[in-house]
Amino acid sequence: MSKKNAISPTREENYPEWYQQVIKAADMAENSPVRGCMVMKPWGYGIWELLQRDLDDKIKETGHENAYFPLLIPLSYFEKEAAHIEGFAKECAVVTHHRLESDGKGGLQPAPSAELEEPYVIRPTSETMIGHSFAKWIQSYRDLPLLINQWANVMRWELRPRIFLRTTEFLWQEGHTAHATQQEAEEETRKMLDVYVDFVENTLAIPVVKGAKTADERFPGAVETYCIEAMMQDGKALQVGTSHFLGQNFAKAQDITFMSESGEIEHVWTTSWGVSTRLLGGLIMAHGDDDGLVVPPKVAPKQIVILPIFKTPEDKAQVFEFCEKLQQDLKAQSIRVHFDKRDMRGGEKSWEHIKKGVPLRVEVGPKDLAKNQVVVGFRNKDHKDKQFVSPDELVQKASGWLADMQSELLAKAKAFKNSKTKEINSLAEFEAFFEKGSGFALCHWNEAAIGHEILAKYKVTPRCVPIDGPEESGTCIFTGKPSEKRVIFAKAY
Amino acid sequence: MSKKNAISPTREENYPEWYQQVIKAADMAENSPVRGCMVMKPWGYGIWELLQRDLDDKIKETGHENAYFPLLIPLSYFEKEAAHIEGFAKECAVVTHHRLESDGKGGLQPAPSAELEEPYVIRPTSETMIGHSFAKWIQSYRDLPLLINQWANVMRWELRPRIFLRTTEFLWQEGHTAHATQQEAEEETRKMLDVYVDFVENTLAIPVVKGAKTADERFPGAVETYCIEAMMQDGKALQVGTSHFLGQNFAKAQDITFMSESGEIEHVWTTSWGVSTRLLGGLIMAHGDDDGLVVPPKVAPKQIVILPIFKTPEDKAQVFEFCEKLQQDLKAQSIRVHFDKRDMRGGEKSWEHIKKGVPLRVEVGPKDLAKNQVVVGFRNKDHKDKQFVSPDELVQKASGWLADMQSELLAKAKAFKNSKTKEINSLAEFEAFFEKGSGFALCHWNEAAIGHEILAKYKVTPRCVPIDGPEESGTCIFTGKPSEKRVIFAKAY
Repeated sequence: MSKKNAISPTREENYPEWYQQVIKAADMAENSPVRGCMVMKPWGYGIWELLQRDLDDKIKETGHENAYFPLLIPLSYFEKEAAHIEGFAKECAVVTHHRLESDGKGGLQPAPSAELEEPYVIRPTSETMIGHSFAKWIQSYRDLPLLINQWANVMRWELRPRIFLRTTEFLWQEGHTAHATQQEAEEETRKMLDVYVDFVENTLAIPVVKGAKTADERFPGAVETYCIEAMMQDGKALQVGTSHFLGQNFAKAQDITFMSESGEIEHVWTTSWGVSTRLLGGLIMAHGDDDGLVVPPKVAPKQIVILPIFKTPEDKAQVFEFCEKLQQDLKAQSIRVHFDKRDMRGGEKSWEHIKKGVPLRVEVGPKDLAKNQVVVGFRNKDHKDKQFVSPDELVQKASGWLADMQSELLAKAKAFKNSKTKEINSLAEFEAFFEKGSGFALCHWNEAAIGHEILAKYKVTPRCVPIDGPEESGTCIFTGKPSEKRVIFAKAY
Repeated sequence: MSKKNAISPTREENYPEWYQQVIKAADMAENSPVRGCMVMKPWGYGIWELLQRDLDDKIKETGHENAYFPLLIPLSYFEKEAAHIEGFAKECAVVTHHRLESDGKGGLQPAPSAELEEPYVIRPTSETMIGHSFAKWIQSYRDLPLLINQWANVMRWELRPRIFLRTTEFLWQEGHTAHATQQEAEEETRKMLDVYVDFVENTLAIPVVKGAKTADERFPGAVETYCIEAMMQDGKALQVGTSHFLGQNFAKAQDITFMSESGEIEHVWTTSWGVSTRLLGGLIMAHGDDDGLVVPPKVAPKQIVILPIFKTPEDKAQVFEFCEKLQQDLKAQSIRVHFDKRDMRGGEKSWEHIKKGVPLRVEVGPKDLAKNQVVVGFRNKDHKDKQFVSPDELVQKASGWLADMQSELLAKAKAFKNSKTKEINSLAEFEAFFEKGSGFALCHWNEAAIGHEILAKYKVTPRCVPIDGPEESGTCIFTGKPSEKRVIFAKAY
């Protein structure tokens, strides 16, 4: 028996194209006329707002305060940290003029008389700009730690853009902190990594591996980069958050010093950490199915949609009255509920909400009224698999059902990740693993293997050294050199 | 008896300088190395976050959805509406390159090989970019009204920047809507003006006059611009919000059409409306006093600060225990309370919170413990005027006190505005009014008076035609021509 799906192609048929079609079908976002930049439509932005609020609470609970710094960075500031500028120079949007004037042909051009003496770069990240403020704000050990976060748009010119995953402009939060000691800064770096793990697993229901980046994959200017890596349903890795221990690199480049308790002038130790709208790409690829998006209840702008069914005006009046009351009762349970009154075909309307991934659909028709029942569809079950309950039971159980769905989505994604994660102990096994498919390969490795041809052949990269992995001596499968811990290898977005 | 104030100069001595000193003393914001751009520090940004959340709720309650559009606008899009581009061309930051490269002298320069074929403008406002999406999204009358809002940063190059009031980059929300009929669009324009009045008066405690702009003060491209004007304590006007009826100007320039119920293709009618971080400048100048900022309780990041007083370690332990419990009890009342444990002089600490405008200060020392009392200072009363209450009474009354303070601030500002608003019936009266001072002058006027020399002499501009003002025939005091309504004239920021 063939099953008709809302999304074509299916994940099996063409995963990258399925991804684009889900974004379209769920009405989350679209490309804009600005190369590499997207328009986030209300459904996609609504999910972003909810996850942002949740993460913001967690960032504040851990003692950080929000602030806002300029969009533009003077070129000379940007140049201060050598590795940093090296890493970002090739993808910077540059502002060179501050006025337009007539081009004499009916159009406009940047006014030559308004060329900036020093060009500005649109921030690709704000270490240098925020570091400049830190240098002014920090005088003594009493001013430390300084714990700042910023929600902002940033820009990194993308040659092969893809909505949410790689866009020239994206939205993110960037935390920036300064500490009196190395140990405190390292602890902060790891603490925020743990905040991200908690947030991504418990709010977005996406299981992650937390680990340290190998040297070649570090943030430009960082001493150590930690990351969380999630597995998408095609077995590829998506880095969904990073936390950097910057040592004293930026402090020295920007002269951020403090007077210690003993009266010495010392450089501070800094960290930075961020997550972005890329998380929405991860959410689509971790939970979506062949009928469209599946939104974890905690970040669903609409957790329940009420769908009235009627033919005659009399039916409509009765059904609407019933639905209005149901909506109020569910709202009183702090549930985000939407009563969809639009005048369109019932099937089409229901499918629209399935494609958007609304967790629960509640249908109410005249026959249901007679039986004092409603029909509930769960987004993480087959769309024909429905439950009949009384409205009282729905109101009483809805919050629990949403919480259960949240847990089920995480459990399902965890099981999938575990099923596609394998310890690999030889190069032959490694080749066989990536020849026929994808997933996380846990192998011993030594830094001397950076750039190995087998990695290029299968487009596989070291994702991270898992923090929770056991200390385990072994031999690098690429070089035969000694290794202390296994590294996760995967194809990656 | 002389009174010592925390802010020097006082408002009386030098109002513009007082304004800068309050921003500094309250640690709200500071200038950045990017010309005309500010850094919003945690206290200033914290107030912004609270007012943003409150206004966002009101925007959503009236049926609007948030979305996000690109920061950059292609020059050709920006050129489409003639009056619009004319109004903004002179203040646009222009992006011309997408990569940096070595300049051969150890520095960086925009890479000539990465010059954009078509430059981008950093959005000064998003009518053209959002209009482009609207043209794609709207097909039929069923897609209308389309009610979108965006929270974003925008950029307008400022030659004489001033923190919060005029900055090159600022944060704002911009609402953009499309409607099937002129009447609906006009109603939307006025509805959102009323949302702003409610928000600014009841959340920020700033009374406003709502009115229509005179022709010469309209938004570039608008058919009608409505605004809300607040009076600062120096009697000058500050425009704190605008709502524009754009007619079909942008719809025609961008070909935004729909099929009507009768099957005709018609242009939509659009509106746009916005408020910005300028509101923070208004908040400072409406409520601040010679001791610093006064924050209305609804937008105070800390509504109550608990200040422990102690000398010995034993006292400290007891006082801290007492304060911890008080903090918990106040939190349970949904009050934003901060227990300031920092190790610094009590007087200095207390003054810091006065300067920041924290509504209530609660001092607790060993003697108070013995008497089971706390000492409460109210920011809108003299700092020596304190009230002694039991901790239970504080917990019970705090929310009410905060609500009272909110009302008192609005009432005080209203009384001030009324005292400085006067009906003026001759040019001689007008000159006398602005010769010796400032305020709102309500005069009859006719558009033929645009550019009158007396206005330039006193740096006075027409602020708006008050919507709630009576229809009243009269004679323009500048030209002697007929007038149907009085206009508010004032010096303005």
